[in-house]
Amino acid sequence: MILTVTLNTALDVTYHVRALRPHTSHRVTEVTERPGGKGLNVARVLAALGHEVTATGFAGGATGRSLKDQLAHSPGIVDALIPVEGVTRRTVAVVDDSTGDATQLNEPGPEITPEDWSAFLTTYEELVRSASAVALCGSLPPGVPVGAYARLVRTARTSGLPVLLDTSGEPLRRGVAARPDIVKPNADELAELTGSHEPLRAAQDARRRGAHTVVASLGAEGLLAVTAQGRWRAAPPRRVRGNPTGAGDAAVAGLLSGLVEHLPWPDRLTRAVALSTATVLAPVAGEFDRRTYEELLEQVTVTGEATAA
Amino acid sequence: MILTVTLNTALDVTYHVRALRPHTSHRVTEVTERPGGKGLNVARVLAALGHEVTATGFAGGATGRSLKDQLAHSPGIVDALIPVEGVTRRTVAVVDDSTGDATQLNEPGPEITPEDWSAFLTTYEELVRSASAVALCGSLPPGVPVGAYARLVRTARTSGLPVLLDTSGEPLRRGVAARPDIVKPNADELAELTGSHEPLRAAQDARRRGAHTVVASLGAEGLLAVTAQGRWRAAPPRRVRGNPTGAGDAAVAGLLSGLVEHLPWPDRLTRAVALSTATVLAPVAGEFDRRTYEELLEQVTVTGEATAA
Repeated sequence: MILTVTLNTALDVTYHVRALRPHTSHRVTEVTERPGGKGLNVARVLAALGHEVTATGFAGGATGRSLKDQLAHSPGIVDALIPVEGVTRRTVAVVDDSTGDATQLNEPGPEITPEDWSAFLTTYEELVRSASAVALCGSLPPGVPVGAYARLVRTARTSGLPVLLDTSGEPLRRGVAARPDIVKPNADELAELTGSHEPLRAAQDARRRGAHTVVASLGAEGLLAVTAQGRWRAAPPRRVRGNPTGAGDAAVAGLLSGLVEHLPWPDRLTRAVALSTATVLAPVAGEFDRRTYEELLEQVTVTGEATAA
Repeated sequence: MILTVTLNTALDVTYHVRALRPHTSHRVTEVTERPGGKGLNVARVLAALGHEVTATGFAGGATGRSLKDQLAHSPGIVDALIPVEGVTRRTVAVVDDSTGDATQLNEPGPEITPEDWSAFLTTYEELVRSASAVALCGSLPPGVPVGAYARLVRTARTSGLPVLLDTSGEPLRRGVAARPDIVKPNADELAELTGSHEPLRAAQDARRRGAHTVVASLGAEGLLAVTAQGRWRAAPPRRVRGNPTGAGDAAVAGLLSGLVEHLPWPDRLTRAVALSTATVLAPVAGEFDRRTYEELLEQVTVTGEATAA
């Protein structure tokens, strides 16, 4: 199974309103709720691709219960979330139906106690033994040490388990130094890490800082991968318009599934770009349409070259 | 005990953000949750005044559980909410800390089935037997017949139980025709019912339509009561600034508590205005400060006269 770690899980709530006008009252015309946090989004896409997934992280309170209830109805995902006293945060996306734009309200995460963190580490060390790969995704909730991902990367690598890290800021900086197999920053996160706004140069710098492979997501332009085997750019067949929510998480799922299936890098990148593009095009935020995905698999272009061995 | 009916209960969520900017992402700095819907607000004030209160209505889903958990920790309120399959709505108030203004997002209520409604009626008929007064408050959720309040008024009156109705639109129009003891519309609701924007004339018209007593809330100007015993206006000592959320519900609690204590009308109105003004002045929306309330009791002015017997 593939293990996904989401330390800052969320119940993602989407509200539709006719038009958002600050300081007035609105009737919400549609409410949807689903388990959120980047690692849970990755888990959902992996499960849709037919992989067995175990999801760990933290869940607590009424929102944590709702999240776990919904996970229980998600085929292919095993719930290994650690119960905490704190209350799992909600993220509320208010979609203005007159423009299609969303306004995001993100609750702070629950305070994770030293006991919660220690319970998580015990579970993580057990799960790592039976996993084929692990994804460490998203921000850290209050109370989790800033070096958390560095520690989780080291634990995975000690077990010989491939580990992908998708976070930002100081947790990314420290995590990279622990030598993860793959990091997947976007252009801003990569620039923050390295100080360079030139993606190729920045990706090379991130490799020097410890990441074995850097896959940078460049928005509508697709992915840039700098690996020990070579460098590639993978791009969708055309610029697409839609909702980019979850597109990065779909790309992570594509990379991980390609990794455990031992696909060559160009095929992994093709899959990741096809999944993220299909997610942007889907009518529901964070979902992807299978037929669109399969069509895109034939249309993604990969350029670049393998490094001479 | 006093019975309060809240057919459209809510979990009231308040978010504080630094400044609300549509179509951007916000970190919520503070989250509070409490049981809501007008009847539950009335119940909370009655309990604070030392009355035994039973609260009925509907609750369901994860939000319904949160609401019931919080009620269980509210001394003086007995939970007689009917469980439903549907999910209790949330209302989200997003307070912009740069201006103090709130943006309101109200989820639709759950669909109430004919079985839910029938279970409610059975419980209501039982509770009415041991109540000293009943308040019917707020809007109707989808699925509840528009004549619901008329029916609940008739059931109460058949048992000789004093009944106060606080709603709007067609449910108010039909409820008034069933001859409730008191209706407490605001100026807009009264104008919608009667077609008259002149409060005294409109209140007299509402009495002709069936209400025994009309207590109109006129915002900062206080209350106007037109009763079989006389007419009075009750006003706070000065115009106050603050958050009017829950002020009308505090007034209802004042009127009801005065009714069961057999206070004369001027004393009931004094209490209602002091409570609603203390609610506007309180730092937390919908709460009231007891000392402010007691000071205001000495300062509210009541003018008017009793009708010759």
